[in-house]
Amino acid sequence: MNLQKHKKCMATVMKTAVISMLIFLMSAAYAYAGQPKYVFFFIGDGMATVQVNAAEIFASSVIDPDTRMHEKLGMSQMPYHGLATTFSENSYITDSAAAGTALACGYKTMSGVVAMDADGTVSYKSIAKAAHEAGMKVGIVSSVSIDHATPAVFYANQPSRGMYHEIDHDLANSGFEYFGGGGLKRPDGSLGNAYDAAIANGYTIVTDRAALEALTPDSGKVLAYNHTLDGSKALYYELDRPADHISLAEFTAKGIELLDNPNGFFMMVEGGKIDWACHANDARSAIEDTFAFDNAIKEAIDFYNAHPTETLIVVTGDHECGGLTIGYAGTGYGTYYDIINRQNQSYIEFGKVLSAAIGSGETFNDIKDDITTAFGLEFLSAFEKRTLEALADAGDHEASVTLRLAVDNYELQDLMRAFTLSKMPRSSRPSDRRTYELYGSYDPLTVTCTHMLNKKAGIAWTSYSHTGVPVPVFAQGVTGEDYVGFYDNTDIAKKLAAGMGLTLN
Amino acid sequence: MNLQKHKKCMATVMKTAVISMLIFLMSAAYAYAGQPKYVFFFIGDGMATVQVNAAEIFASSVIDPDTRMHEKLGMSQMPYHGLATTFSENSYITDSAAAGTALACGYKTMSGVVAMDADGTVSYKSIAKAAHEAGMKVGIVSSVSIDHATPAVFYANQPSRGMYHEIDHDLANSGFEYFGGGGLKRPDGSLGNAYDAAIANGYTIVTDRAALEALTPDSGKVLAYNHTLDGSKALYYELDRPADHISLAEFTAKGIELLDNPNGFFMMVEGGKIDWACHANDARSAIEDTFAFDNAIKEAIDFYNAHPTETLIVVTGDHECGGLTIGYAGTGYGTYYDIINRQNQSYIEFGKVLSAAIGSGETFNDIKDDITTAFGLEFLSAFEKRTLEALADAGDHEASVTLRLAVDNYELQDLMRAFTLSKMPRSSRPSDRRTYELYGSYDPLTVTCTHMLNKKAGIAWTSYSHTGVPVPVFAQGVTGEDYVGFYDNTDIAKKLAAGMGLTLN
Repeated sequence: MNLQKHKKCMATVMKTAVISMLIFLMSAAYAYAGQPKYVFFFIGDGMATVQVNAAEIFASSVIDPDTRMHEKLGMSQMPYHGLATTFSENSYITDSAAAGTALACGYKTMSGVVAMDADGTVSYKSIAKAAHEAGMKVGIVSSVSIDHATPAVFYANQPSRGMYHEIDHDLANSGFEYFGGGGLKRPDGSLGNAYDAAIANGYTIVTDRAALEALTPDSGKVLAYNHTLDGSKALYYELDRPADHISLAEFTAKGIELLDNPNGFFMMVEGGKIDWACHANDARSAIEDTFAFDNAIKEAIDFYNAHPTETLIVVTGDHECGGLTIGYAGTGYGTYYDIINRQNQSYIEFGKVLSAAIGSGETFNDIKDDITTAFGLEFLSAFEKRTLEALADAGDHEASVTLRLAVDNYELQDLMRAFTLSKMPRSSRPSDRRTYELYGSYDPLTVTCTHMLNKKAGIAWTSYSHTGVPVPVFAQGVTGEDYVGFYDNTDIAKKLAAGMGLTLN
Repeated sequence: MNLQKHKKCMATVMKTAVISMLIFLMSAAYAYAGQPKYVFFFIGDGMATVQVNAAEIFASSVIDPDTRMHEKLGMSQMPYHGLATTFSENSYITDSAAAGTALACGYKTMSGVVAMDADGTVSYKSIAKAAHEAGMKVGIVSSVSIDHATPAVFYANQPSRGMYHEIDHDLANSGFEYFGGGGLKRPDGSLGNAYDAAIANGYTIVTDRAALEALTPDSGKVLAYNHTLDGSKALYYELDRPADHISLAEFTAKGIELLDNPNGFFMMVEGGKIDWACHANDARSAIEDTFAFDNAIKEAIDFYNAHPTETLIVVTGDHECGGLTIGYAGTGYGTYYDIINRQNQSYIEFGKVLSAAIGSGETFNDIKDDITTAFGLEFLSAFEKRTLEALADAGDHEASVTLRLAVDNYELQDLMRAFTLSKMPRSSRPSDRRTYELYGSYDPLTVTCTHMLNKKAGIAWTSYSHTGVPVPVFAQGVTGEDYVGFYDNTDIAKKLAAGMGLTLN
């Protein structure tokens, strides 16, 4: 081969190589553009469209009246939208374990089962585990205990959600890089202390803001929770949160910082106390926890804005809770959300006050002020009413709100009847269906107060349980378009797996 | 110029012409592909996600139990999905006039106003009028009176939805090619008879199936309604519909046949009685009318399947109604929809029976059978209960359903208390808030029966009015992707106009 020919040949080889390289780079860029590297999965427990909308109406009518009905949460502003059915294998109305298994693993199961089949024999692989196997870092954040059903389905496999001790050890053995939010419900038991097991497995445990802030991406695996948790090892309700308690958004932001790495991450964040507030039919607490959840979502949106071609955010609820509606028979077409702005404590904080008052022998008259402090309900004298009416007639908005909060004679009877039951030991209270319809399994006076306050605002509830209405799905970013349409909750896990190029079992 | 040159030049000219023609055809094809020629706009009055889902659960659990929870209505199977806020200019909870104005014209207005601004001075142009001006044929179909707020906003401009007589004449003067469904509420008045005005304007009026079927595309403009309508000039509830009454789907199918033409058409179909059933808190009637509405949608889907590149179908609700939920405190996580399968009459048909019974002096005992016939509620003796319990224990499903339908002593008291009020003239009944919460403005015994039946099924209501929860939007076909996301109801009219290349004012 002469030099000329050789040069030509080399040029051809080089050309081919360059073209091959270009094709490779283009296909790599295609795969890169097609698959999200950073994946956020937000689950509002007990959050359907109505919970989102109640928060938006509260934001519009109270927090920022200038926006006049147009206020939208961060999740609502995402470009892609879908709807998902939530039923479990055995019930139109699911629990969080079956709903979580569907969302995390793509399978229907019986209510109560954590990422296993209905018999509790086959373990399902969650999208978080699949992501971890593929080399992504994984974070799990929740405002309730981190071993509660919704977070648990992502790292544990247990036949019953009540097996907290086993779930706690599944957490300690998960290898996931970040856990943030609530604590463990049953760390101690036959398997040994789960916190100790986590530490043995390389986890750093932090329980306050300063320690959390001090962590760096080099700190290794982290289990973070607030130094003070509620009786169920959950974060406090957002409405009651002391300034030194770490918020859901802070746990999320720190998670992002710690998990960010060249192989990408998967992060699940649960707004778990929306559900608990809805079980208790406490609208204001549910709304504040929806804001807390949306603030966590906004951390992800900030991250998305910095990495728009690599990030996917999916937000959904696992089911509705409480049968919340934006309207009540007694208020017709009216809406008075500034009324619930007078509520200062969650039902649970009032419950503590009430318990103490009953313990020290206080009468109904003694606790009226406590009711007003907690819920804004007013016990007005005739003179006070007349004064307020004159002010309201003259256009004083706050006076008219106070008048709407006035307890009438019927309502007073309801409160006093409930207080009589509240004073009785739980085991002595009547257990008939009508009593259950009125109070559920909650403290009778407390739930009577939230019902009364909510009805005055034009908010009503039908249940103390979950309900079966489909939940919204909001999505933004790479493969976000996959979440358009009306499908089943199991499809969400499948869409995540397909979009991320992962395989569930 | 020599021949050779001329030939070359001609060839160039021809080439250019052919290329120009191709570009023209391609751009025409692009415009054609980009804009729908046949547009269907379906509005379920009072229909939010929960109404759709209740119908799907009923279909899954009763009509076709083999589908086990997976039954989907036609609308739910559409590929594009969105969510829309529904508030009016003055209320988070809208009425149908303001919601209709938003959907038809793209403007917020005060509740009660028909396609005008809040002052009733500026008239808004509906998408139907814009389509008609552009040469498309227009059809308006509704299961309620065709001059009711929702259909009216598409062809009328009036400061109040109660101005039926003026609306009727707006209809007669609209020039729209097809009206189908209910009749006119106030044809007679100062402007003369509106039916006569319609006839004078070239409309053919048909009132039975044979006459409707006999119409051809050459029949000219048509005003079609059922020979027998209810007291509000609406179609009967689907649950009560006699075989000779034309269905909403039939009115829709005939409309398609009559409107189909080379310039395309715009057709609005309202499922208006979903709303009325929800106002009355009658779940079974609402579900059957949701099926009737979906059957009408299926006619459009059939048409879409024949013209997939030229058709757009958009389905939404104008607002929720009744605060319907898929769950009730008394039934917890259970759902028992086969219970409402025992209901055979709408609340309105039972009302007629009850009225006659009260008129002839019947006692509560006399009407128990009527209650059982209408709603399936059972007044069982101790012996009957024991017998049924034995059957249910042996696995007899119908026996267990009957037992669930048994009226207990509490419920019997509620029914008898309501009957006492039902016997009183409306003006003598107590008008306090508690009484309103129990019965709304409905017959006390009737609404007590539907509440009782629905609660046994695990269905609850919070209001006799509309509620403020956002409504789903389902879309399919050309420009269907425009309806993805979470937006306002005014945006739907704007999306329609943009997609169809039309201008609203």
